[in-house]
Amino acid sequence: MHMMKNLPEKFTRGRKTRPVWIGSVKVGGRSPVSVQSMTKTKTEDVAATVKQINELAELGCQIIRIAIPRLSAAQALGVIKKQVRLPIETDIHFNPKLALESIAQGADAIRLNPGNIADPEAIKEIVKQAKKRKIPIRVGLNSGSVTGYINKNKKFKSKAKKWPVWQTMVECALEYCRFLESLKFKDIMVSLKASDVQSTVNAYRLIAQKTDYPLHLGVTAAGPLMDSVVKSSIGIGSLLLDGIGDTIRVSITGPPHDEVRLGYWILEALGLARRGPEIIACPTCARCEVDIIKITEEIKGVLRNPHSEFRDLNLKVAIMGCVVNGPGEATEADIGIAAGQGFAWLFKKGKKIRKIPEAKIVSELLKEIKRI
Amino acid sequence: MHMMKNLPEKFTRGRKTRPVWIGSVKVGGRSPVSVQSMTKTKTEDVAATVKQINELAELGCQIIRIAIPRLSAAQALGVIKKQVRLPIETDIHFNPKLALESIAQGADAIRLNPGNIADPEAIKEIVKQAKKRKIPIRVGLNSGSVTGYINKNKKFKSKAKKWPVWQTMVECALEYCRFLESLKFKDIMVSLKASDVQSTVNAYRLIAQKTDYPLHLGVTAAGPLMDSVVKSSIGIGSLLLDGIGDTIRVSITGPPHDEVRLGYWILEALGLARRGPEIIACPTCARCEVDIIKITEEIKGVLRNPHSEFRDLNLKVAIMGCVVNGPGEATEADIGIAAGQGFAWLFKKGKKIRKIPEAKIVSELLKEIKRI
Repeated sequence: MHMMKNLPEKFTRGRKTRPVWIGSVKVGGRSPVSVQSMTKTKTEDVAATVKQINELAELGCQIIRIAIPRLSAAQALGVIKKQVRLPIETDIHFNPKLALESIAQGADAIRLNPGNIADPEAIKEIVKQAKKRKIPIRVGLNSGSVTGYINKNKKFKSKAKKWPVWQTMVECALEYCRFLESLKFKDIMVSLKASDVQSTVNAYRLIAQKTDYPLHLGVTAAGPLMDSVVKSSIGIGSLLLDGIGDTIRVSITGPPHDEVRLGYWILEALGLARRGPEIIACPTCARCEVDIIKITEEIKGVLRNPHSEFRDLNLKVAIMGCVVNGPGEATEADIGIAAGQGFAWLFKKGKKIRKIPEAKIVSELLKEIKRI
Repeated sequence: MHMMKNLPEKFTRGRKTRPVWIGSVKVGGRSPVSVQSMTKTKTEDVAATVKQINELAELGCQIIRIAIPRLSAAQALGVIKKQVRLPIETDIHFNPKLALESIAQGADAIRLNPGNIADPEAIKEIVKQAKKRKIPIRVGLNSGSVTGYINKNKKFKSKAKKWPVWQTMVECALEYCRFLESLKFKDIMVSLKASDVQSTVNAYRLIAQKTDYPLHLGVTAAGPLMDSVVKSSIGIGSLLLDGIGDTIRVSITGPPHDEVRLGYWILEALGLARRGPEIIACPTCARCEVDIIKITEEIKGVLRNPHSEFRDLNLKVAIMGCVVNGPGEATEADIGIAAGQGFAWLFKKGKKIRKIPEAKIVSELLKEIKRI
């Protein structure tokens, strides 16, 4: 949990949205972008679910979503809540009763899918209970279920034929929001995830112009780790670059722990979070006279080790192989080296300090980092 | 090399730039985005350099850059060229003679760094030779060497104090281009790489509004694989999403082979290249009743195996865990499954075909893919 508290206010940025609270976590309104994930255990297996949530919390996960496929899953929620600190968003599809029961059991937010929760009377009852408990609703529409909404809605059906899927998603979500607003409910978040990166980005860019509800970002069904790291980085990253997005969930066909790690990597790459030293390292080329790849791996091994004393340092370290960009990058970093033939220049706080012989680059660099 | 030829014209897109040719590869003018890398061997070690270039070509690398730190490296170029098919761009810093010698030895393009090649007479001579050989020049300015340009240029020095680094990079590069234009030379590419993702994206977005020269994209000094995959995906990916970028080079502190692979992953994630089946797979949650993670890994293992008969299939495969988004995604894919309790529905070309028992999902899915 300590990671979350460490996020300094300076990472606050982006478009100003109308904030909501999921438990103790503020989403939107220029609060820091939060990282969330979803449990992959059977919800009714309380021990396994609690264990997974607490592991994810240790990694910095700030909001956890839990699928509620059956009434027994909703009923398990109250017991789970007592054993975890993270606020819980329940994931509801098809059956409105699962929303009502999960609210009764203490859910901190609920996600409704307009593609399969569409009955106005049912929505009215859910909103009534959400108001009473002061919890927000996420309108979560994915490319894979948008046809469910269209099929129930004649008004959209003919129009949607001319629209690309992302525009259809935006229009459907906005109409759903308007219905919630008509019930005097505005504690709303929106997500519009497509499995296609371009459609995802287009959908969020469009809705960002049309509403100030906080946006939950993600590329859906992004696949295994190395597929998702590329798709999610592009999709989530390019939106965050534009100041769009209030909370993120990376989707990986794999352990949820990787979803949290990758979420932070994306935030870190954009300077929206810092949970340890950033390493600027050159790719090396024929110009390089020392083994920069090996040096970088050794430095990274020490600095990024979860048990390292350096792990939480907010520090930029440059490891550069030659004099082309080396002195420039090393000067910009908090500490850095620019290698020459058999030695490296050490830079600290923008100043060239001294020469280090090749064999001592790693040890001297670590010694100097320790002094910071 | 066959990968390159397979890139269909439909991936052509983006802003229309003034094309240049690097050997047989057209860069810009709406030609497909090309993937390049850089050798990390000692250039004078001809055998090692040739071996690396040919390995990278096998992976789909289309242009190779070679650092020329010394005259002996430039002199090795002629021998290297005879043993490889890839067009070669030489990387020149500090010493204009290295540009002249590499042109004489048959370089297909040269990269000049305005930060350290600034003498007008020297540039005139390089341009004269480049014209004679009909090869393009890349104006390659990085955040780590932009101060070199400013320090030699009083006009910029005071202005640049008020500019963010990316604006300085753009203004310097444009002035350098204008000097080349004054010599009636327009076979120009531009790169503006910063080690900071946001600065990189800002620089390219700004220059894209100001010039129609083809842009070579990259985030510089992006670090080891897992750092670079996030930074490069966001930086290069978000620019490509906006239609900016004609050729890309991923920078990894590691083997150049990974640079080529990651380059293609980025293009594939955006539908700008397809070199094998795309896997859409859900992250799974409590709703999922079959082991989607295991099934996805097994399918991926077969489809992505470099020796697999499926490796070059242009195919979208959806592996989805439940009925929420499963049928939608599986319908959109060429082939897919949406799992239920102990079984999965098979979808093919948008149609629900039949039920498969859980134990046979992998084998039946592969059998159906084979039939396509």
